[in-house]
Amino acid sequence: MKPRIGITIGDFNGIGPEVILKSLASPSVRKSIAPVLIGSAEIFNFYNRKFKTKLKLKAVSAPTEEVTPQEIPVVNVYNGSEKNVQLGKAAPDAGVCAGISLERGVQLCLQNHVDAMVTGPTSKEALHIAGYNFPGQTEMLAMLSRSERVTMILVAKTLRVGLVTIHVPVRQIAENIFLGRVLEKLETIHSSLKNDFGIEAPRIAVLGLNPHAGENGAIGTEEKEIIHPAIEKAREKGINAVGPFAADGFFATLKSNSYDAILAMYHDQGLIPLKMQGFHEGVNFSAGMRIVRTSPDHGTAYDIAGKGIAEPGSMIAAIHLARTIVTIRPKNP
Amino acid sequence: MKPRIGITIGDFNGIGPEVILKSLASPSVRKSIAPVLIGSAEIFNFYNRKFKTKLKLKAVSAPTEEVTPQEIPVVNVYNGSEKNVQLGKAAPDAGVCAGISLERGVQLCLQNHVDAMVTGPTSKEALHIAGYNFPGQTEMLAMLSRSERVTMILVAKTLRVGLVTIHVPVRQIAENIFLGRVLEKLETIHSSLKNDFGIEAPRIAVLGLNPHAGENGAIGTEEKEIIHPAIEKAREKGINAVGPFAADGFFATLKSNSYDAILAMYHDQGLIPLKMQGFHEGVNFSAGMRIVRTSPDHGTAYDIAGKGIAEPGSMIAAIHLARTIVTIRPKNP
Repeated sequence: MKPRIGITIGDFNGIGPEVILKSLASPSVRKSIAPVLIGSAEIFNFYNRKFKTKLKLKAVSAPTEEVTPQEIPVVNVYNGSEKNVQLGKAAPDAGVCAGISLERGVQLCLQNHVDAMVTGPTSKEALHIAGYNFPGQTEMLAMLSRSERVTMILVAKTLRVGLVTIHVPVRQIAENIFLGRVLEKLETIHSSLKNDFGIEAPRIAVLGLNPHAGENGAIGTEEKEIIHPAIEKAREKGINAVGPFAADGFFATLKSNSYDAILAMYHDQGLIPLKMQGFHEGVNFSAGMRIVRTSPDHGTAYDIAGKGIAEPGSMIAAIHLARTIVTIRPKNP
Repeated sequence: MKPRIGITIGDFNGIGPEVILKSLASPSVRKSIAPVLIGSAEIFNFYNRKFKTKLKLKAVSAPTEEVTPQEIPVVNVYNGSEKNVQLGKAAPDAGVCAGISLERGVQLCLQNHVDAMVTGPTSKEALHIAGYNFPGQTEMLAMLSRSERVTMILVAKTLRVGLVTIHVPVRQIAENIFLGRVLEKLETIHSSLKNDFGIEAPRIAVLGLNPHAGENGAIGTEEKEIIHPAIEKAREKGINAVGPFAADGFFATLKSNSYDAILAMYHDQGLIPLKMQGFHEGVNFSAGMRIVRTSPDHGTAYDIAGKGIAEPGSMIAAIHLARTIVTIRPKNP
């Protein structure tokens, strides 16, 4: 049995449907998973025609409905059509469809109708307009799946990066860094490296928050007061965490495979180096979530929506990572 | 006449003296500049013996004193000896020597006894202990040279990165980003690209502050309220600035020579990618300073001080950049 992977449409005014269909047109993906699309069957078909991906999509109301081996089921949660598509716009219709798809995707995972879900890129703005008031989809999925300790791990080539804060304005980063949270992230990443990635004795590097990792207190105190104590506490619990390191020098001198994961304090600190290492290959994984969930590391890319030039590499990598984790993670842990 | 380059010792408990002497042992450097060391002649000689760099150093009280072509003058501003050296420690003696050297270096530049200065790496902590209460050497040099508008530009290979904030704790970054300052940085960088780097029509890319450059206001408002208006104002003044761009994707997709400089909002946003591009080659240049000043992009590296394993690449690049700028910048502008 191939792993059944639910794939949510994301924002249908962005490149989500395009990269999903292009991914499913790839033989390596079709060979290794049983896909279940979640969103609007008509809108998926609109893009299927537009980009000539020639997939046989079949609208279903639940994944239990039978389809032929050539057909890809689309759990139709939104009765829209191409008339609802406003390419490149953050609009309520697409926000509603994206939101309902996420809700249904989580349900399907929790009810074991699919083994994992991969989420197409959404626009936070569109979700907000549609009434989904979450900082991002990860937070929404954590709530829906009742997962209290979720840490986004970003994966590209040999690099895995966890984030203490994600979609937080820079103005609010520092107030969101506290000992309990850093420790929790270390615990979640440690467990995930063992259970989801099959690494027996994970090594985690921790970055400082401030320039030069605070330079011994001269440029900020969070390293001394929060990050270093959190590392100490983690080590007492048997977690092999080291740091805090100054982020700029750290990535410049990092040798591949020195660490199994790196814990960054905020979005750009982790994502600038990660994306430089492997663009079109980055995947987000929601470590600690009760369901297996991955997503591509790019956004809706409104500027190129509908043009047919979006690269599916990151979506393909997200599907493969979901499949890999499904095979490694122990059932009913 | 070779350009006369003053080189300050930096923190003598760190790798400063080592990388300076190793640089001057390089024929490419000796051929192209007339060096004037500034610091402690005895301590320079201690390292000269220790690392067998075999330079002929001569203590002088001013660069006007005659030396033979084989000799390198050391303007002796600190009567210390190897007994004052505490390898790898932030200590007051080294802080005092570093501070006095900087003061003297600026004087020599302003009095036209040297054409430019290159500064060895200092420890902010040691400078603080010694009573020099500046956020960093750049700020101290700006004050000493009475330069009101200084912007650090970091140069590595084809990349030039300016910073709106430098050695500021993350907690205080946002409050230090305001329209007047971003605009001033753009003006200073634009002028410097023209006058110091000889670029006729400079193109400057501006990064956002927040993740995803604020995602249209969903993750912070600084892009809409500050950075975008600053870019508009700069463009009205004939500066070819564009942005703000989301920093993570920007560097991942940046093609070399697309922009003559990039304006980053804070230290790690600019320095993570810069150091990943060219470690051991990065140079800091203080754009807008009345004197020509460069420095290597690394710190005192206390952990390897005295071991003889420090790489002089960045110091060599700093000396060459100072020389280049001396030849380009118009005299008495």
